[in-house]
Formats: sequence, C-alpha cells, structure tokens
Amino acid sequence: MAEIPPAARELLESDALAHLVTINPDGSPQVSIVWVGVEDDEIVCGHLPFHRKLRNIERDPRVSLSLEGSGLNRIGLREYLVVHGRGRIEEGGAPELLQRLAHAYLGPDVKFPPMDDPPPGYVLRITSERFGGVGPWAK
Amino acid sequence: MAEIPPAARELLESDALAHLVTINPDGSPQVSIVWVGVEDDEIVCGHLPFHRKLRNIERDPRVSLSLEGSGLNRIGLREYLVVHGRGRIEEGGAPELLQRLAHAYLGPDVKFPPMDDPPPGYVLRITSERFGGVGPWAK
Repeated sequence: MAEIPPAARELLESDALAHLVTINPDGSPQVSIVWVGVEDDEIVCGHLPFHRKLRNIERDPRVSLSLEGSGLNRIGLREYLVVHGRGRIEEGGAPELLQRLAHAYLGPDVKFPPMDDPPPGYVLRITSERFGGVGPWAK
Repeated sequence: MAEIPPAARELLESDALAHLVTINPDGSPQVSIVWVGVEDDEIVCGHLPFHRKLRNIERDPRVSLSLEGSGLNRIGLREYLVVHGRGRIEEGGAPELLQRLAHAYLGPDVKFPPMDDPPPGYVLRITSERFGGVGPWAK
C-alpha cells in the first residue's frame, strides 16, 4: 500500500471526477466516471446498485483511476493524476457516503441520493499501490 | 465499426481531454490523458515517442477512452462519453496532428510541439465499436 501524497489527496477530495477502470471477464477495460473521496488513506466511492464494475472487482481487484488537475506543466499540458490500486467492496453505507461526496461535487445544500428511501448499496474502497500521470504526485 | 454519433463527435472535437485506457501485458489497465480529434470517422491522437500505450496497442488493440461532457443529467450528474474501440498505429504525422489539436486544446496561436525539429512520431487511429457513458450518445 502506498501512502497518498498530499497533492493527490487534495485532488481526490476536490470536485474532480474520477474515471474508474475495471477489467471485464474478457480482459477488456470497463470505464465509468464516479465521485470519490478519501477515508483512512483509502479512496472510496459509493454505489447503490451492484454495478458491473463491482462484479469485475470481485473477480479481479485491480483498478485504475484518473482525474484531471487544474495546474499546467511547463509546456502547457494539463496536470492529471493516475492511481493504480486494488479495490474491495463493503456492503451498505452508500447513501451516507454519497451524501457526503455530493457536498463536494454538487454543493452544500444538495440532498443525494435524491430518493427518500435509498437502498444501502455498496462502498468501494481502493488501496493505492502506485501514482502516475503528470504533476507533483508523479515520479 | 460504429459511426460516431453527432453529439459524441462534437465532444471529441472539443477541448475535452480523453482518458485513454490500454491493456498492459499482465492484463492490468494502463491509463493516460491525451488530446484527441476526429478524422475520417476515426478518433486520432498524436505521439512523439513510442509510448507504453502504443506498445500495448500493438499487442492488444482494444482501447477505451472517456471524456467529460458539460451537460448534466436529470439528477445533476455530469454527462460523459465512453468509447470502446480498436487502435492501430501509423508511423509519422504526429507533429502536424498535434499542431492541429493544439488549436482546439491550447488556443489559436500556439506552436506545438514546442521544439523546432520534432520527430515524425506516431498517429494512433481508433475505430469505434461501442459508445457508452451518460448522455445523448449512450444507449
């Protein structure tokens, strides 16, 4: 497990969207965009249904995610963070996590999930193994 | 090969960055952010060195890319486009393509690549097979 560098943590806790990659049974990439946060040095995201990405992670826990930063490098290219890690799935807790993340992504007064009685869902917890991309977090 | 829907083409030709996923020899995802454009109904990007992503595509042509849109869906989530396709690599032509894409990504007066005598590099051409994500391009 690699500790999350401070600049990477700041981006992971911002309103930057995370492009999450999991591996399909046929070895092809599966991609979706998710909200993320950080808890106990793990990257977390919440899911109400048991999505295909979660089934993929049950079978092969290797995941990658990428987020666009706001800084530019010396030739004007946008900084970005790539995290390679391993995911594990916890049952329950999704509505509470999504509500917390909604404050970062949508605003301080938003109710999310929007329905009154959401299912408990699943929390995906990702342990970081390697950081890349372009920016202060990249080797 | 799937024809690129008009709304997806508009996003692919905008200044939205593409998160490009290729498959490493060990089956894990490799992710980088690239500039993209459209030529002859293919998605194109230019590379000066023969990056790891190009080596990956030589071995396994399956690629995915994701781009953030600007619209929101009915519950306030950002639209995004995912393209699944197959890549092939052409030698040469990268500086000319990068200069064209730099006008969309950096501005009308930018010289890119910034060096005086760039190598011919490689152009990655991606044939789309399936569109997903959240937005008018998703089934």
